Amino acid sequence: MKNTLFKGIIAYPITPFDENEKVDLPLYKQLLERLVVSGSHAVAPLGSTGVMPYLNDEEKEAITEATISQVKGRVPILVGVSNLTTERTIYHAKAAEKAGADAVMIIPMSYWKLSDDEIVKHYDAVASQIAIPIMAYNNPATAGVDMSPALLKRILEIPNVTMIKESTGDVQRMHYLKKELGDNAAFYNGSNPLAMAAFAAGASGWCTAAPNLIPELNIALYNAIQKNDLQEAQKLFYQQVNLLRFIVEKGLPRAIKAGLHIQGVEGGHLRKPLQPLTETEISELSSILQLVHTAG
Amino acid sequence: MKNTLFKGIIAYPITPFDENEKVDLPLYKQLLERLVVSGSHAVAPLGSTGVMPYLNDEEKEAITEATISQVKGRVPILVGVSNLTTERTIYHAKAAEKAGADAVMIIPMSYWKLSDDEIVKHYDAVASQIAIPIMAYNNPATAGVDMSPALLKRILEIPNVTMIKESTGDVQRMHYLKKELGDNAAFYNGSNPLAMAAFAAGASGWCTAAPNLIPELNIALYNAIQKNDLQEAQKLFYQQVNLLRFIVEKGLPRAIKAGLHIQGVEGGHLRKPLQPLTETEISELSSILQLVHTAG
Amino acid sequence: MKNTLFKGIIAYPITPFDENEKVDLPLYKQLLERLVVSGSHAVAPLGSTGVMPYLNDEEKEAITEATISQVKGRVPILVGVSNLTTERTIYHAKAAEKAGADAVMIIPMSYWKLSDDEIVKHYDAVASQIAIPIMAYNNPATAGVDMSPALLKRILEIPNVTMIKESTGDVQRMHYLKKELGDNAAFYNGSNPLAMAAFAAGASGWCTAAPNLIPELNIALYNAIQKNDLQEAQKLFYQQVNLLRFIVEKGLPRAIKAGLHIQGVEGGHLRKPLQPLTETEISELSSILQLVHTAG
Amino acid sequence: MKNTLFKGIIAYPITPFDENEKVDLPLYKQLLERLVVSGSHAVAPLGSTGVMPYLNDEEKEAITEATISQVKGRVPILVGVSNLTTERTIYHAKAAEKAGADAVMIIPMSYWKLSDDEIVKHYDAVASQIAIPIMAYNNPATAGVDMSPALLKRILEIPNVTMIKESTGDVQRMHYLKKELGDNAAFYNGSNPLAMAAFAAGASGWCTAAPNLIPELNIALYNAIQKNDLQEAQKLFYQQVNLLRFIVEKGLPRAIKAGLHIQGVEGGHLRKPLQPLTETEISELSSILQLVHTAG
Repeated sequence: MKNTLFKGIIAYPITPFDENEKVDLPLYKQLLERLVVSGSHAVAPLGSTGVMPYLNDEEKEAITEATISQVKGRVPILVGVSNLTTERTIYHAKAAEKAGADAVMIIPMSYWKLSDDEIVKHYDAVASQIAIPIMAYNNPATAGVDMSPALLKRILEIPNVTMIKESTGDVQRMHYLKKELGDNAAFYNGSNPLAMAAFAAGASGWCTAAPNLIPELNIALYNAIQKNDLQEAQKLFYQQVNLLRFIVEKGLPRAIKAGLHIQGVEGGHLRKPLQPLTETEISELSSILQLVHTAG
Repeated sequence: MKNTLFKGIIAYPITPFDENEKVDLPLYKQLLERLVVSGSHAVAPLGSTGVMPYLNDEEKEAITEATISQVKGRVPILVGVSNLTTERTIYHAKAAEKAGADAVMIIPMSYWKLSDDEIVKHYDAVASQIAIPIMAYNNPATAGVDMSPALLKRILEIPNVTMIKESTGDVQRMHYLKKELGDNAAFYNGSNPLAMAAFAAGASGWCTAAPNLIPELNIALYNAIQKNDLQEAQKLFYQQVNLLRFIVEKGLPRAIKAGLHIQGVEGGHLRKPLQPLTETEISELSSILQLVHTAG
Repeated sequence: MKNTLFKGIIAYPITPFDENEKVDLPLYKQLLERLVVSGSHAVAPLGSTGVMPYLNDEEKEAITEATISQVKGRVPILVGVSNLTTERTIYHAKAAEKAGADAVMIIPMSYWKLSDDEIVKHYDAVASQIAIPIMAYNNPATAGVDMSPALLKRILEIPNVTMIKESTGDVQRMHYLKKELGDNAAFYNGSNPLAMAAFAAGASGWCTAAPNLIPELNIALYNAIQKNDLQEAQKLFYQQVNLLRFIVEKGLPRAIKAGLHIQGVEGGHLRKPLQPLTETEISELSSILQLVHTAG
Repeated sequence: MKNTLFKGIIAYPITPFDENEKVDLPLYKQLLERLVVSGSHAVAPLGSTGVMPYLNDEEKEAITEATISQVKGRVPILVGVSNLTTERTIYHAKAAEKAGADAVMIIPMSYWKLSDDEIVKHYDAVASQIAIPIMAYNNPATAGVDMSPALLKRILEIPNVTMIKESTGDVQRMHYLKKELGDNAAFYNGSNPLAMAAFAAGASGWCTAAPNLIPELNIALYNAIQKNDLQEAQKLFYQQVNLLRFIVEKGLPRAIKAGLHIQGVEGGHLRKPLQPLTETEISELSSILQLVHTAG
């Protein structure tokens, strides 16, 4: 079963906080609305960008519900439900399905390095409790565990695990997935600076926080790929690559919030231990954003 | 201020669960009692061995209270209070202090890689809210962030951060700490297979789950070091090194539970996604335990 | 100064030996001729594929002269002249220029890790002694030293260093080069499994041993890129990727020699310590070669 | 067969050059003599410290002969004979044996990553041609290939391979060797900053360039270990650790030459691409050397 619901630009909203570090739901809805109207093909609340691991159960459920009521079916919704324990992952996956999510994303968060068998059993236990599709997400930099292409292949044998998000930054992993899995599964790129290489490798979509700042460039890159125009895509990629690299290097929530502020959009506060970018970093980001647009 | 309360063998209890994955407090107390009576010089609940990140707030507080009521002051208690957010870390640090802990251990758990400034502010925010000493814990394999010796030096400038636990497995980090910090701070080894090298480098203590299985050998190694008997220490180390390596490779909670069972001690169940060792692994552990004792 | 002489498929011949491990020059010329007539856009003797580091001075000079006399100006020639000492590198660079090479390739071979300043001085010393262009070659896996993009930028300030060959396997290095250097320098891909990603990133050419086995597919991939046909390029890439991966994993000289034998072409012997592929590896290579052609 | 000839401090001389980068044999003999009279237990010409890979065949043979004629049997001699090809390694091993070396040291230098089988065959081919013992040397940082403990165990099955020099900087490798090989083989430490940890792990000797600068401290550390005096050894180790770290970080030939100059001893010139330390580095080294001696 190949999932065809999610493709193109899958935009990740941030979770804004008020000055007391409480989730600011009205502001969240405004920021989410910007992503929808800018033309993103899907939205993904409670990702790394949305600092999901820093939220408690009630906050996560509130974000999911706010997303569904705000989007009103205009684009498909992919909800992050990852948790350290299997029991809590099941809990949030069921809650997301019940609330109306189109699919859930699960990264095998770990403290203790999980064995391949433990990871497969974890996905299997969750998948058996829900009917909507699961995107398995590989990102050793945040999860602490690196799922090999062979393990991902095993996980894809679970019926409703139909999508892979690859964020290792190694384009050869994508080649393997494409070559081994063919049309049986869709893979998505989660590494911003690899956007061009991933589309050239056949990625179905790009999971990214960049549409918070430069939606038109992200979408134009996807469109050039769709038109089979390599030269145009390459030109568009090099126009945005410095921004893509910057937001990854500084951490997506911090960098997006700073970029919104530079663009005159209120992005709220961060929850500690996350701290705002330094003045030097903000000034660097301003320069990058200016160059991105004048080069356009 | 050099902390002299904690030294020698600091033993880490596991957190046992019942068949429904609920924390089994009575069994926890039995397992903890074994550590105290075996001669360990201190105990450390809610460490990685105790699967602290897999527990909810109430469970953590129950474990802390159970520890204090069971130990009854016979040995000092070091309570793990690490959390992804600064607010929750403060909450648990204060709760541990109030319950009667002698010190708290904090690892900068991260999802987003924290900057050095973010880490310092995190420790500073917690330290300012409690009066008991803090052990800063460096373990990139579980925390996802590696604190450089230079960063650890900065953190030690916070008045009540007085101890460092080093678990990178790189003995040169310990040399740096000893050389740079002299007698102003104590460093502890958290890498079991480095036990000998760490004591030879001047470690004040050894943070370890091994006393759940072989307390007499762990304590004998420390005693040989205290007697300045290098040859005896080396002999004792090689007697236990295969076990130390095994429990680290397989993950401490899983390996300790299996080892307890082999030795006829009830260790309870694991919380998923953690799974029991395989039959092959259990059989390998049995052989190692037998050799450890016959070699003695 | 942008070098426009080298572009497209730059083919690397192997250096064949006779049964006494002596260089077999007549066989070398035959294998070289195959590369030229198959349509490769340039040839590069004395690369890693040609086991240059395993040859003595006389053997290297004989290979260079044999190449020039055989090619007879039909395609440009890039000669590898790398050596551990600066004096020997200058010696071979001057010899290659005198013999008629169009350009030389230099990797900073190292035993002791060289500092950035040592590397710049090494390139500068060689460049000042010759008038033909130099391709600076970065491949930490064989050279033991990794030249950062910033260092490569410094080296490109030397007038006749006009080309960069990047073989780290990290496509982001190529993005940096393209973005920072623009049209002032050409970069070439030396990592076979990155062929598609590198062309999508704007590489001027592909330095590869693959034309010894599948020249038509290598050239077709380049042609699809030239026609701006991303979909065709992607299809051609996936047709050959398993072979590209195999020859890199097993080592180019060993894998190419085995592949030639499978295709009925004499490839001579290896010089020890290199040993032929095992029977299992040869059988795997046979399957890959068959699938490459039937998929065509 | 356990080798008992080599133990304690095995000192590595540098190879000095004159202003035209020619080997300066009279100066070499003077520097070698310093190592012998300072009390080193053995000497090892043509190591990494002696920039062996930068020398041609004639130069290597001249150094070997100069060593033997200068030492006159006062201490055992271990000659480096490593080469990229098996044929050249055999040539130099036989030459060293004929000249009177007590043993040879061989690192599997590589350009192409060698398979385990290729490495075993390489050692076997050399070992079968000589009667003196071989020290197998593992140092991925310079050789580009990392021999696993399991591979080293295989190599030790070759009758006259009787010693292992471990330079990975990972003390656990030494634990494995000691535990697995027991008294059947001797292992030597080649990582200067691990001197203390290695002796604590049971190393038979320390292969080091440090006696060019601080022989009395190196020998005192070994003597403390021999006396089973851990505290004294620890004190002596911390007295010299900053120098040990510095010479490794900067590269042994460059750092030793600079240190000799600071101590008023002529060390000759380097062969390019190696360059002298910068003024800043020299000044740092001066401070370290002063502190080493005043701390004594």
